Amino acid sequence: MSVSPVPDTDRAARLFAVLRDKTFDGVGVTRAAYGPGEQIAHELTRSEAEELGLEVAVDAAGNLYMTLPGSDRSAKGIVLGSHLDSVPEGGNFDGAAGVFAGLAVLAGMREAGFRPRCDITVLAIRAEEAGAWFPISYPGSRAALGRLPAEALAVRRLDSGLTLEQHMRDLGFDPDTVRAARGRLSATNTMAFVELHIEQGPVLEAASVPVGIVTAIPGSRRLRAARASGAFNHSGATPRPYRRDALIAVAELAHRLDEHWAALETQGHRLTCTFCVLGTTEEAGFGKIAGEARFQLDVRSVQPASVDAMFLEMHRLVGAIEARRGVRFELGQETTSEPSPMDAGVQHELVRAAQSLGIAHRAMASGAGHDAAAFAQAGVPAGMLFVRNQNGSHNPHEAMRMEDFAAGCAVLGRWATTVAG
Amino acid sequence: MSVSPVPDTDRAARLFAVLRDKTFDGVGVTRAAYGPGEQIAHELTRSEAEELGLEVAVDAAGNLYMTLPGSDRSAKGIVLGSHLDSVPEGGNFDGAAGVFAGLAVLAGMREAGFRPRCDITVLAIRAEEAGAWFPISYPGSRAALGRLPAEALAVRRLDSGLTLEQHMRDLGFDPDTVRAARGRLSATNTMAFVELHIEQGPVLEAASVPVGIVTAIPGSRRLRAARASGAFNHSGATPRPYRRDALIAVAELAHRLDEHWAALETQGHRLTCTFCVLGTTEEAGFGKIAGEARFQLDVRSVQPASVDAMFLEMHRLVGAIEARRGVRFELGQETTSEPSPMDAGVQHELVRAAQSLGIAHRAMASGAGHDAAAFAQAGVPAGMLFVRNQNGSHNPHEAMRMEDFAAGCAVLGRWATTVAG
Repeated sequence: MSVSPVPDTDRAARLFAVLRDKTFDGVGVTRAAYGPGEQIAHELTRSEAEELGLEVAVDAAGNLYMTLPGSDRSAKGIVLGSHLDSVPEGGNFDGAAGVFAGLAVLAGMREAGFRPRCDITVLAIRAEEAGAWFPISYPGSRAALGRLPAEALAVRRLDSGLTLEQHMRDLGFDPDTVRAARGRLSATNTMAFVELHIEQGPVLEAASVPVGIVTAIPGSRRLRAARASGAFNHSGATPRPYRRDALIAVAELAHRLDEHWAALETQGHRLTCTFCVLGTTEEAGFGKIAGEARFQLDVRSVQPASVDAMFLEMHRLVGAIEARRGVRFELGQETTSEPSPMDAGVQHELVRAAQSLGIAHRAMASGAGHDAAAFAQAGVPAGMLFVRNQNGSHNPHEAMRMEDFAAGCAVLGRWATTVAG
Repeated sequence: MSVSPVPDTDRAARLFAVLRDKTFDGVGVTRAAYGPGEQIAHELTRSEAEELGLEVAVDAAGNLYMTLPGSDRSAKGIVLGSHLDSVPEGGNFDGAAGVFAGLAVLAGMREAGFRPRCDITVLAIRAEEAGAWFPISYPGSRAALGRLPAEALAVRRLDSGLTLEQHMRDLGFDPDTVRAARGRLSATNTMAFVELHIEQGPVLEAASVPVGIVTAIPGSRRLRAARASGAFNHSGATPRPYRRDALIAVAELAHRLDEHWAALETQGHRLTCTFCVLGTTEEAGFGKIAGEARFQLDVRSVQPASVDAMFLEMHRLVGAIEARRGVRFELGQETTSEPSPMDAGVQHELVRAAQSLGIAHRAMASGAGHDAAAFAQAGVPAGMLFVRNQNGSHNPHEAMRMEDFAAGCAVLGRWATTVAG
């Protein structure tokens, strides 16, 4: 056999620099899903893949496939990938790291003269940042898997107000084929999907470990448009017994639910509970009791029981606070997602790869959602590699070190050469 | 003696209707301090006073004096009055009721041929709604009393951004004279000031009493621009121990301080504590832990010790929450005002007047600030009459009944004829 392939991380470093320059918005990077920044990222990636001599294809939803052909084209392939969109004023590595890691791995294989047995495809996925653009989970990867429900095409992008269908058409893609649920990827033709991604929290940094091997992606229960209504009244002239203060009702809910979370953690539950947005409305002002308040609630865990325990307590508190404070809660639509365990076999192979390279690693649950969840839900064995990252994510200060990225790429490449070798 | 004067409340009812029509904004009334709506109110009031044959004068700050001359022009006069500005989209009665009550009383005296011993002046005061326009207490009445500090002229109107001085000049008034602190009214020339005002809370309505006789106007301690800073982080990927959630810090402060308020009330304290505005900032969004939050706090009581007890607890909580949650509070500028007891003699005279008319009444503390506080602070014996009012104030739904207004006017008129008779 030829020399062992080494991922070409210099190439990835160059791609990161070019992509940042091209999508810098003055503060961070902005690569809107089906917008100009994401399109720039896809064009850059595609031209790099063509230069590497990979087979290039684009599906009906605009996902980009870059394939190093295997010796047995009929064998189940493996897919490495992530997304290329970003939040507004976001960081350069969130998503792009997984795509450029895949290219680095395939470039290393080319360099080493490695010919895989099965196809290895790098997948650049559309529209993963649901909080920023289309408020639905994983439309790009679900379309690639032929599993995007037709109604998802009617969801509107938060900034433009245009539907997903319209945005696809504007870029020359084919929402009718997406609607017909004809995906390119499935458990039938895909042996495994592995996504490398920066860790979006501080766990690896705090543990001084460069690489995480993900055990599961959390499920969630979410309220995006909850409110409480009471009565606007004069802040000085309205004694306590006559108040119907919506703000203090919501503040009590937030504080008491936070205390419940702390209690669950001491009992061994692991979850997150966040009031992402909370506050009085336009009508509020100095000298007034707030008669309206709104909030968002985001509860996530890989254990559905932990999420449900929080919502149970939330509903109990809402009833008690309504009765005591003369306010009325409207929780609005609740959205839910199930947790997605990563494939045990893939996890084991990734651990073996890291061990064989002597790279420090630890098993950890993801806190955020990722496209890998869509693959797991489609029955494709899925795994994830996290790369240590400083300063969180979804902000311009993301600071993944290239040596940690190289460690992640090495594990990804070793895994791919092993399973496709 | 001639027949006992009866206030001409039909005249007041007509004035209310005209004023509402002329200052209706589509939702409620808007009479900005030193703005078009207040100016309309002053012109309407002035022309009514001229029709009644009252002596009319305007001072350097634009306050309007409408005087029924007494037989002894050198005797100390009495002043009845209130303000003519309103909050945006406010109610028609807040302020205007006190001015039109004064006109109704003087019209009734004219009708009955009553000639007072001393001057009786109805005063239409400028710019009382500090929360809406100039964020300082009582600039109009303090200017009338020659007690407005020069620096107050540099305060900017919240909507226009122009200074009080500029707004005065734009309407042809004379801020230089205001700055020189030459007021028309003082304890030397004024026997008493009485302000009739709608009650801005629900106390009289709940007690089924039409008229309140005010014992004191509260003092306050206020934060208008307080904030907490932590760190923005991913809501799913940031486990509890790594969070610096500014929103949950502020929610805890609000809830715990509200609990402290409830405890103080059970110990006999009477006060109000309101987080008028509280919430996450622009940068917040779904999927993020809020790294910034802001709030306003308004604590009022006629007992300084009650206000101070709340601020003591607030500072204790801030320290504890900072230490526990890794956030930093910046409380910003604190503004304070002292409580103003109403004159015991005036209160007693008002009670006697109500008793002599058989009008049900009760003694009560004001919850809100009023121009009467500026008179009390200047050493002028001051009193207030509250008129029962439905649906609170500072909103378009204020609903004072004309029969309750007539009861208030009757007490005011009886008091004036007694002390000036």
